[in-house]
Parts: sequence; C-alpha cells; structure tokens
Amino acid sequence: IRTGKTTKKALIFGKRGMGLEDEINEANDYYLANRLAVVHKKPTPITIVKVDYPARAAAKITEAYFKQASTTDYNGVYQGRYIDFDAKETKNKTSFPLKNFHQHQITHLANILSQGGIGFVIIKFTTLNKGYVYPASALIKQWQNLKGKQSISYHDIMTHGYIIPESLNPSLDYLKAVDMMLESLK
Amino acid sequence: IRTGKTTKKALIFGKRGMGLEDEINEANDYYLANRLAVVHKKPTPITIVKVDYPARAAAKITEAYFKQASTTDYNGVYQGRYIDFDAKETKNKTSFPLKNFHQHQITHLANILSQGGIGFVIIKFTTLNKGYVYPASALIKQWQNLKGKQSISYHDIMTHGYIIPESLNPSLDYLKAVDMMLESLK
Ligand SMILES: [Mg+2]
Ligand SMILES: [Mg+2]
Repeated sequence: IRTGKTTKKALIFGKRGMGLEDEINEANDYYLANRLAVVHKKPTPITIVKVDYPARAAAKITEAYFKQASTTDYNGVYQGRYIDFDAKETKNKTSFPLKNFHQHQITHLANILSQGGIGFVIIKFTTLNKGYVYPASALIKQWQNLKGKQSISYHDIMTHGYIIPESLNPSLDYLKAVDMMLESLK
Repeated sequence: IRTGKTTKKALIFGKRGMGLEDEINEANDYYLANRLAVVHKKPTPITIVKVDYPARAAAKITEAYFKQASTTDYNGVYQGRYIDFDAKETKNKTSFPLKNFHQHQITHLANILSQGGIGFVIIKFTTLNKGYVYPASALIKQWQNLKGKQSISYHDIMTHGYIIPESLNPSLDYLKAVDMMLESLK
C-alpha cells in the first residue's frame, strides 16, 4: 500500500523527481515556444588553461577549472522587462540557509534593482514540494539583517515571497508567481 | 617621422589596439561602476566530458569541448529595459560579411524583439576604426534579403546603424549609439 501510495503521488506530481534546474529549463523552453518570455541559463564559467588542436578534429580542452560566477544563473526578457534570478533548493522544512548565497550574487541583484530590472530568487523546499519567487529586495534585506544568523525563516519566505502555483506543463510555472509579484509592486 | 606619427596616433586612439571584446568589457565595467547599465558577457559554452577530483585540490576538467552558443554574447539591463547584442569586427572597408552570423543568433535576436527587448549588433570596421550599433531589425531584414549574397554594405550599416562616437573613457561608449537608436524608435 505504501508503495502504491507513493506511485500515485509520483504520478500526480509527475516531475517531482526532476532537479530544480531541469524544471526551470523546461519552463524556459515552454515560455520560448509559446512566446511568453526569453530566458536562458548562462553557461558555467570556466577558466581554460590548456587546449589541444588535433589535426582534423575539434579543439579539445585538456585542462580547465570551474570559476565562481560573478552574476546569477538566469536572465532574460519578459514583456519588455529585464528579469534576473538564481535558483536554490533545500531539504529543510522551516528555513532557508543563507550560506546558499554568495556576496557577489547579492551585489549583482542589488545592481539589477538599481537599474530598474526585476530580480528575485526561486527557492524550492523539496521536502514540502513548494516553490517560491522571493524578491531580491527581501533577500537583500535578510542578508543585511541576518549577518551572523543562519537562515531565512520559511515564514518570511511565505510572507514576502510568491508561491509558484501547481502546474503540469510546465511543472514549475514560475512566471505566474512573477506576475503576482509585479502586480503587488504596482 | 613615420614612427613618431604612429606613436602620436597611438596615443590619441590609445585603445585602438584593444580587441573589440576587451573594449566592450571595459565599457561594461565603466557602466557598472557608474550605475549606467548592468551588462555582462556570457561565459563560453562548453561540453564537459571528464572531471578529475584530486584529494585536497580543486576539481580539474580534463576533457571538454567548445559548444556553439544558442544565444548572443552579451545581455543586461539599461534603464529598466532588456538589451541583448553580439559584437563582430571586420578588416573589410566596404561591407560586412554575413558569414559572421549564425542562424541561431538571428533567431535569438528575433525572439528578443518579439518580447519587447532591445536587440542589436556592434559592428566594428577595424581598418576604418569605426563602430556601429546596428539594430537587430535591420540585420534580420538583411539576413532574409541577402540569402545567397555575401555581405551587408557599409552604406546600409551607415544608413540604418548608429555610429559609436569617439570617446576616451570608455573607448567604445556604445550606449551613446543605443541612446540614438532608442530616440529614433520613439
Ligand atoms: Mg544556482
Ligand atoms: Mg561574438
């Protein structure tokens, strides 16, 4: 019975097993195909040290290292407006650990806001299966306030964030939550 | 005397020897520091095949390949608006070869326009030392018209593009030309 129940649940929340990044990529593909938005994930930044150029074959990178990103992972255009965000998931149920963010991401989001762009983070509580669009303004405030403290409370994210409504296609229809955020900023 | 003259010229057009990408990065740094715009170059997309995880050392990529980009190289936010562009240079004096573009870049720019974003290319004629902001709409038109033909004429770029005025800091103050473009779209 347990197993049956799990299977049923797995059918209902069919994409539950997908990683957050896959879900966002799927949503972005859907938005692009349906002309709702153009959002892409930026490539992983890499420092290339050595490249081989074999005759009659593609250049082969033989030594490279991962480099810390200076921005967020996603940006694009939605109804003429610039949107910029990062995505983070946690197994926690009551709070979101700030150690998931880096100072340069916070700084980047602050720069975006000061230029009139729309900045936020998608925070997914995987155990609760709930995703939120949490405004950059709230994140920056928490980052400053919680200096030393560990986490943003789930309550704060519920209060200042916008829940991503359940959806089948795409499974993480985050622009619905962005719409609510933009509506409340009006 | 020849040498002296060259040196003087090199002083006046001090950054002439910089590659176009360096000039754009320098402009973007200037815009960021002066809160005029937030524009970043996207990392080069790479397909990673093999990674070593040596004990007590950073992960080392030992096999990877360059991947064709599905978008343009630069995007960001300027006065609340989304901007998206690629940069190309040529030694030609009378035309710009279309082979410098790929279909996916044209498609991406068309998607950006349909979403209300600002799309363009920065075209630099290195021999003439002239740079233009050439609107995506004009590029897409030429791409369709010139099917089979080789190049956009310099005359067309002069007519439909916006010259980047000479400047010292940053040496390629391309937002000045973007301003002219936006003004004429009003
Ligand atoms: Mg991330
Ligand atoms: Mg390029």
